[in-house]
Amino acid sequence: MPDLAQQIHELGRRARAAAPLLALATTEQKNRSLLAIAEALLAARVEILAANAADVAAAEAAGLSGAMLDRLRLDEPRLTAMAAGVRGVAELPDPVGRTLREWNHANGLRFAKVAVPLGVIGIIYESRPNVTSDAAALCLKAGNVVILRGGSESLRTNTALAAALGRALVQSGLPADAVQLVPMTDREAVKHLCGLSEFIDVIIPRGGRGLVETVMTHARVPVIKHYDGICALYVDVEADLAMAGRILLNAKCQRPGVCNAVETLLVHEAVAAAFLAEAGPALRGRGVQLRCDDAALDLVGGEQAPEVMRAAPEDFRTEFLDLILAVKVVAGLEDAVAHIAANGSHHSDSIVTESTTTGERFLAAVDSATVYWNASTRFTDGSEMGFGAEIGISTDRLHARGPMGLEELTTYKYIGRGTGQVR
Amino acid sequence: MPDLAQQIHELGRRARAAAPLLALATTEQKNRSLLAIAEALLAARVEILAANAADVAAAEAAGLSGAMLDRLRLDEPRLTAMAAGVRGVAELPDPVGRTLREWNHANGLRFAKVAVPLGVIGIIYESRPNVTSDAAALCLKAGNVVILRGGSESLRTNTALAAALGRALVQSGLPADAVQLVPMTDREAVKHLCGLSEFIDVIIPRGGRGLVETVMTHARVPVIKHYDGICALYVDVEADLAMAGRILLNAKCQRPGVCNAVETLLVHEAVAAAFLAEAGPALRGRGVQLRCDDAALDLVGGEQAPEVMRAAPEDFRTEFLDLILAVKVVAGLEDAVAHIAANGSHHSDSIVTESTTTGERFLAAVDSATVYWNASTRFTDGSEMGFGAEIGISTDRLHARGPMGLEELTTYKYIGRGTGQVR
Repeated sequence: MPDLAQQIHELGRRARAAAPLLALATTEQKNRSLLAIAEALLAARVEILAANAADVAAAEAAGLSGAMLDRLRLDEPRLTAMAAGVRGVAELPDPVGRTLREWNHANGLRFAKVAVPLGVIGIIYESRPNVTSDAAALCLKAGNVVILRGGSESLRTNTALAAALGRALVQSGLPADAVQLVPMTDREAVKHLCGLSEFIDVIIPRGGRGLVETVMTHARVPVIKHYDGICALYVDVEADLAMAGRILLNAKCQRPGVCNAVETLLVHEAVAAAFLAEAGPALRGRGVQLRCDDAALDLVGGEQAPEVMRAAPEDFRTEFLDLILAVKVVAGLEDAVAHIAANGSHHSDSIVTESTTTGERFLAAVDSATVYWNASTRFTDGSEMGFGAEIGISTDRLHARGPMGLEELTTYKYIGRGTGQVR
Repeated sequence: MPDLAQQIHELGRRARAAAPLLALATTEQKNRSLLAIAEALLAARVEILAANAADVAAAEAAGLSGAMLDRLRLDEPRLTAMAAGVRGVAELPDPVGRTLREWNHANGLRFAKVAVPLGVIGIIYESRPNVTSDAAALCLKAGNVVILRGGSESLRTNTALAAALGRALVQSGLPADAVQLVPMTDREAVKHLCGLSEFIDVIIPRGGRGLVETVMTHARVPVIKHYDGICALYVDVEADLAMAGRILLNAKCQRPGVCNAVETLLVHEAVAAAFLAEAGPALRGRGVQLRCDDAALDLVGGEQAPEVMRAAPEDFRTEFLDLILAVKVVAGLEDAVAHIAANGSHHSDSIVTESTTTGERFLAAVDSATVYWNASTRFTDGSEMGFGAEIGISTDRLHARGPMGLEELTTYKYIGRGTGQVR
């Protein structure tokens, strides 16, 4: 039995070896494989659901929370949705081979910048099994080989999913090594994976702080982090307060457990009383706990635990992923921008104002992947932004920022076609 | 006296603090600063040349090679050229604020993808002092703050250059912290710099293996490597051999010390005898040493040290940066592509062939930043490719591949302008 480092090395070596075949696969070949994967997921539904039931039972026995169990659980409708998601990727345009730019050197040498696959992508994620098929489908469509490392609690499910994917790949003429699963739950496996600079072109960690920090500490390969969303909404002195209220309720309550939900409300001191008089009760009516700075606490009538609490400084740097909102009164735009710079996570932030000057200044000054003026932060999403599907939301600045769709899963190369040109 | 880690931390903190001012600087402000920098370089010529003379004297005393001394040495014409380079950057279009894409959500929310600065860039390089002004000018034009760490042998020169740059920044209304020099020659300083994930957005190492590997080992921030160019020229069975000879002589001899020079010749077995009969003497006439595999050695008449030697395996994985060429006879296109994949550095590779099919197959199959058909690899250069100027040639795949000009020194953000849209 080879040791863990050797096993991970071998997995990386096989991925690298498969990469040229994927890079040169035609659109038709890749789409045929995607349709075969969708069919294979449905054909293997009995094994997959049985494996998932075993994972769920083990997780229950281990005392996992209800929200965690819900993320882990598969059933017929969810599996059908996964297969439909893979079919949807087959329908998207192929991002590989696009000519991004063409021009000529004065000497006649013709240059083109063309999109090519990234190569071998490692994706490290948590317990949702749908990530396994979504990530595999997106990577495959963009001509990449993928190494998947899901959460340990979903290993049985992911093993069954990967077996179905592997069968479909082979049936459709692509190498089974194009999609590989790390079969060890040991966190050491992640460390070894992060060190495979010889074989892996990029690692995408999607998950909580512990996971992302493990990857950052051990990475010898480039990383695109999919980290937390500490998103703020700033209600300006010139805001339409009714609009601000609708946006706040949507951004906080429509789906509080996602990274583009608002966690922080910043409200201009001149409208704070009026705005909180309406928004406070509305939020509390939806079950939102308010964690207020001193000024906001006065305006909402002081602490009324558990619905209204005094905020601790770390509440403004926390991704609650829950019906909790940190509330702060600010002196104006500059104060709001400075708060976001110091406490936000550069994910999605929004201003509500009727002033074009103030709106545009916020859009320019806030350094986040997506910045809104008079709209909910909940639009930071590959599907809402028209990318068709996404592998996640990058909180990094290099290569890809915000939702990563198929185009962001490619890089480029330059091609020079000449007739003997020399310098 | 604070310790090294604290000093580097403070330098990073000041760089981060200056970043928003640079990001929001107008094109006019940035160009005014660039022109002031050009003037300041010329105004400080006495101090700069004196500092450089001291660096050169110390390097001579330390026994540095002639090529190294030549890279380090400044004189009036070189300093004038540096100032002209900075003025040239002022004339290039501003890469910041470009609208890369605009579209509407069905609900009327208007999305735009706009170019923004990367933020704080660390550049770690070797002894050429012109990199100091070139890198500062390019980073400034793209709205970035830059931390420069040149080779220890050029510290006096770089300190004098940085003083002139700082004066020009302040005079023209931008913060002096926008361009900072790491004033310590200790390699420990590089390690600390690579760990400043709180303050630095990307580190660009330009240099030899030791430098790049130190950065890779210690980096906790994203890195874009500017590494070696092990570039190959493949002469196909259907090549115009006269064209192949011209391209080979150009790519090997026109400037052998640069990363886009050819280091490896691959020649199809069916034309190897004819090609080497012409190219061999021509190369040797230019002083090129040939390191041949067995088949090539037979064709050129065996070893005739020092001009013709038997190649060791590592000769095919070496960036000679000198008048040395590794020569190998291959069975055909697939063999050439496999050799390049196994031994090359994904920088620049070229095929000479009259066959469109073979040429296009090479362009598709070779996974390098720039791939040529019937042209010299020497065109991989920001100026030759029309980028105006470059910070270097990326050998990485993410964010920027090949020559990095002003556009590659930016990232993007999404802006959503709405009228109250919610999900």
